Amino acid sequence: MPAHHGPFRPGDGAPAGRHIVIVGAGFGGLRAAQQLKSSPARVTVLDRRNHHLFQPLLYQVATAGLNPSDIAAPIRGILRRQRNTTVLLAEVTAIDLATRRVLLSDGDIGYDFLILAAGATDDYFGHEAWAQHAPGLKSFDDAVEIRTRVLLAFEAAERASDDVERARWLTFVVIGGGPTGVELAGALSEIARHTLARDFRRFDPREARVVLLERGPRVLAAYGEASSASAARQLERLGVDVRTGTMVTDIDAHGVTLGSERIAARTVLWAAGVRGVSLARTLGLPLDRAGRVVVERDLSLPGHPEAFVIGDLCAFEQGSKSVPGVAPAAMQMGDHAAANVLRLLGGRPTEAFVYRDKGSLATIGRAAAVAEIGWFRLSGLLAWLAWLGIHIFFLIGFRNRALVLFEWSWAYLTYQRGARLITESIYDSWRTLWGAVATTGTPASAAQGSAAASAD
Amino acid sequence: MPAHHGPFRPGDGAPAGRHIVIVGAGFGGLRAAQQLKSSPARVTVLDRRNHHLFQPLLYQVATAGLNPSDIAAPIRGILRRQRNTTVLLAEVTAIDLATRRVLLSDGDIGYDFLILAAGATDDYFGHEAWAQHAPGLKSFDDAVEIRTRVLLAFEAAERASDDVERARWLTFVVIGGGPTGVELAGALSEIARHTLARDFRRFDPREARVVLLERGPRVLAAYGEASSASAARQLERLGVDVRTGTMVTDIDAHGVTLGSERIAARTVLWAAGVRGVSLARTLGLPLDRAGRVVVERDLSLPGHPEAFVIGDLCAFEQGSKSVPGVAPAAMQMGDHAAANVLRLLGGRPTEAFVYRDKGSLATIGRAAAVAEIGWFRLSGLLAWLAWLGIHIFFLIGFRNRALVLFEWSWAYLTYQRGARLITESIYDSWRTLWGAVATTGTPASAAQGSAAASAD
Repeated sequence: MPAHHGPFRPGDGAPAGRHIVIVGAGFGGLRAAQQLKSSPARVTVLDRRNHHLFQPLLYQVATAGLNPSDIAAPIRGILRRQRNTTVLLAEVTAIDLATRRVLLSDGDIGYDFLILAAGATDDYFGHEAWAQHAPGLKSFDDAVEIRTRVLLAFEAAERASDDVERARWLTFVVIGGGPTGVELAGALSEIARHTLARDFRRFDPREARVVLLERGPRVLAAYGEASSASAARQLERLGVDVRTGTMVTDIDAHGVTLGSERIAARTVLWAAGVRGVSLARTLGLPLDRAGRVVVERDLSLPGHPEAFVIGDLCAFEQGSKSVPGVAPAAMQMGDHAAANVLRLLGGRPTEAFVYRDKGSLATIGRAAAVAEIGWFRLSGLLAWLAWLGIHIFFLIGFRNRALVLFEWSWAYLTYQRGARLITESIYDSWRTLWGAVATTGTPASAAQGSAAASAD
Repeated sequence: MPAHHGPFRPGDGAPAGRHIVIVGAGFGGLRAAQQLKSSPARVTVLDRRNHHLFQPLLYQVATAGLNPSDIAAPIRGILRRQRNTTVLLAEVTAIDLATRRVLLSDGDIGYDFLILAAGATDDYFGHEAWAQHAPGLKSFDDAVEIRTRVLLAFEAAERASDDVERARWLTFVVIGGGPTGVELAGALSEIARHTLARDFRRFDPREARVVLLERGPRVLAAYGEASSASAARQLERLGVDVRTGTMVTDIDAHGVTLGSERIAARTVLWAAGVRGVSLARTLGLPLDRAGRVVVERDLSLPGHPEAFVIGDLCAFEQGSKSVPGVAPAAMQMGDHAAANVLRLLGGRPTEAFVYRDKGSLATIGRAAAVAEIGWFRLSGLLAWLAWLGIHIFFLIGFRNRALVLFEWSWAYLTYQRGARLITESIYDSWRTLWGAVATTGTPASAAQGSAAASAD
């Protein structure tokens, strides 16, 4: 294989032709790239990370069940056989539709066709200050941050000097009763009740309290009422305190306020909503309430037939409902946008997108889940097995699939979670948290006394 | 299991008695704790991390072959069945031998017996400024830092605008020809020649150059001459440029200086030496040249029969040689120090430590290694299989063993490395590196031009 030298040419080494730029290698962007494999065009995939992330399993990383690399694959590795495709690690700061250029933090790149698949981020509904106290779950960093907070909360409980402080460390609040919130709450309860049950000497981890707060009248609001009721029952069986119809009015380092009520908790997680990434605002086009880009029926931008928006960043109404921000929808949109680009390259008109709902699955815990496939309803072990099979099937790359299956079988048989690591740098963040406690008047520095000089 | 409340008592929940504090849960500290399982004393294990690390395989994390959690196990999990033992996450800042207290960053703790097993850190021989340009490999943070630097170097090469800059990104220098340096150099060469061989469009990763610099006359100086020669041959077969008798006089962000010679390289790794952690200096006792604590024949401190130092932090001469800083030596010392504590508890005299050398093994790459066991010498595939078997056998916990075997079999068959992740926060560190390039006059921001407006 000869080396390529000289100035930058996107898609260098591929046949000459039109240039298609894809921003984001999530489910939508990656599928679009794969559909363009045999096109005569040159394709450039831009992402600020070097890996594709299997986001539906991110909560497993956050709860120490899986390793980051179990649910990720290097983008280059996935696309290595596509000779017309170049992958570049780059941060996109804006889109200039008029001149057809993608602006990067350190340069810019022109396109003939654009597929924008930059995704969504956590939505704190105007309360940005809550973000530091209640991290959300969108990236590896988020997942590792949550994992660290959870594991350190138990460590801090072991060193807490009084019951009030210990209870605060052992209370976990999850805000938002959608699929992510339900998954997180179920997994946290399992960690406390099984994984860590025998690890501590001064408290029983089963004393831990997991509270799931939902603003609406039921969890999993996008599902049918029977599924919601079943999910709530399964959560309660796992020991989760499910509270619907609750409105969070404040979050700080020491807990959550619900109007006149206060829940003292050192660990609060956010799963209440997402919005389109801020990059969308640089388009200068109408966005919906959730910051998503309103597209034409063929997924292109109004007035810009050469630019498409797909996935979580795309606002697309079908019937009276918005297409949901889930992986299958993003993949269908990726396929469709790529097909429309190929139509335009061939001088043909584009076609309208139609979303096909294949059903919904949400997992809750060990052998606990709900599924809705057409008119078909499942819950409990069968739904969980369906969820397991589908998620393993869709994990990219054989190696990950086999590894994840192995980790899950092991976890299922033993209740152990393999990825219970607090890495060194994160210990520092704990000391910061810890310092915060020490300054509240509650002595967190409890490692006092000894056999020779135990005062009490 | 009832919860324990009230003020801090180390070893709470265990039978009352004398208090043994172990600082550090590496190979030595952990073995000592395990030997004290049935003792009537209360045992407290202090570590600044929540996990025991299988350090001999850390280079595999640094070179994206294994995940962090494959080679680590939570200390609590390992010791959970030892009811007389409490594990605390804490940072030890000093030892006060006179009052028998361990000082923490946030408190202190008394002891009747102390086993100090705090380990070693990288030694830059007075050139502390080199540390930022040439990270060493002692912790997870180090391993992830090295992995990130290596993967980002290839990404940067893909975006480099000229050949000189690209060559600089594709040159990897490893300083130090001991086991760690040899392992790192071999693995880096395999990554370039096999793992990434087809991933890039503008250069062939096989152009990458791996240089191993050793100050002495041969690599693996602690081994026999035949093994050293065999290791050098095996490294060269993997494409490593082995240079012995070279003296590094400077390291900066752009390369390494060897007297009048200069090697331009963006990635430099340090494996040239270690020294005892600085905690040793707080003892106020004699240290050897490498900052290790000089102990009595029974591993106790001069004048302090109740305090023992073991593992990499311990300077112990046997015959004319110093006991090496390897895992088997630390484990033997851990066993011995614990046995001596038990003797003292029983009113008996301590015994002198005798190190039993079970042999040495160093791996170089795929099917490449050297082994010396008694008079027995092995190299190549057989030595590698011996190395593989022994390392998997000694990995703590079945789960890790099976996973690592799986990962290695997969890597062996496919040359793929599963843990090729650059996590988000680390992208920022790359931008810093990248920025450094941009200010040297070499335009790193190479993502210029497009199909529509390619100037060149």
